[in-house]
Amino acid sequence: MFSGAQVSLYPMADDFVRIILSSLSALDPYRARFRIETDDLSTLLVGPPQEIFPAMRDLHVAASRNNVHCVLHATVSRGCPGEPDDPICTPIAGRDFGTPIAARVEEALANVAGAPSCGQVVAAQLSLYPLGAGHHMDEIYGCIDFLKRSGVFGKSKNFCTTLRGDAGAVFATLSEAFLRFGSPAGHLAIDLTVSANSPSKA
Amino acid sequence: MFSGAQVSLYPMADDFVRIILSSLSALDPYRARFRIETDDLSTLLVGPPQEIFPAMRDLHVAASRNNVHCVLHATVSRGCPGEPDDPICTPIAGRDFGTPIAARVEEALANVAGAPSCGQVVAAQLSLYPLGAGHHMDEIYGCIDFLKRSGVFGKSKNFCTTLRGDAGAVFATLSEAFLRFGSPAGHLAIDLTVSANSPSKA
Repeated sequence: MFSGAQVSLYPMADDFVRIILSSLSALDPYRARFRIETDDLSTLLVGPPQEIFPAMRDLHVAASRNNVHCVLHATVSRGCPGEPDDPICTPIAGRDFGTPIAARVEEALANVAGAPSCGQVVAAQLSLYPLGAGHHMDEIYGCIDFLKRSGVFGKSKNFCTTLRGDAGAVFATLSEAFLRFGSPAGHLAIDLTVSANSPSKA
Repeated sequence: MFSGAQVSLYPMADDFVRIILSSLSALDPYRARFRIETDDLSTLLVGPPQEIFPAMRDLHVAASRNNVHCVLHATVSRGCPGEPDDPICTPIAGRDFGTPIAARVEEALANVAGAPSCGQVVAAQLSLYPLGAGHHMDEIYGCIDFLKRSGVFGKSKNFCTTLRGDAGAVFATLSEAFLRFGSPAGHLAIDLTVSANSPSKA
């Protein structure tokens, strides 16, 4: 299954170029397992689905150091039928969609509870798009149940849902939503915004 | 049909708060016909589908004055089944999906050719998501044909397509894609990024 993201960083600061460039080393631990391509609009990350959100977390936390108001936006996708299958995107073993939804919710909650703390509070906003046939609404409702019990649920808004909390728990919650719900072979996309250090506190 | 967008502005400058606040007057001509709600992550615009992209264009051009590198991100939606129908979202008359696709492509191209110039070059990146049943692939292919002939087509990337040109033509192209293609009553969402004055020219 092809999986990856188009990722952009927006540091609201005059020296945004330096901030972005100095945060890129946060991706170094992931480079061997990812294809990474940058242009003027975004950086493509293609690689193992279970490492996409940890990579984005480390990148965003690095760019948000020193209390910079910094937003990460990502267009995340798995199973896009227009994309070639790629061995570097193979999911890890044991992510079994045969497991009943209730059990997957519990597994996801356990993983979020064990997420490392990053010491950086973030607010996130996501829209989850299950595309094509084969995405049972049970899967979507299971994901919503998980998000509401994740400990970082914010609120429902028009067109999206918000999460709030430590970057560790928020990105872990996003990753579990991406990996464990929706049709296993289906096309699933997420429109994701994560904000740190906003002066407009919720 | 419920239509609207969650819109965010990201000026890459120390005085981002002043830039954002001083650009909001660009929405004044639209306020009477829109419901507008702001929190720390985005601003909700709910209103007539044919005015969503002009409103976002005017907002983004205003915030990009004085050569500020400024990005607008929007989660745009029409026909979301979870949203109440709303009289302010009623499409204008004459947008008839009974018209053959080839004729709609020509109408869209004519509208883009007549778009006003804004004097601001932008780069845009969009992912278009037709959700649920009823979106014939013919509609999607028709939209892609239109984008490629729009005069502002950039390139195809993983997970998205880019456009480049004057903000007038780019936002007009986006608006036509949103209004004229996909199932008329179906749920259609766009994950949109528009960037002005990037120091990383393509």
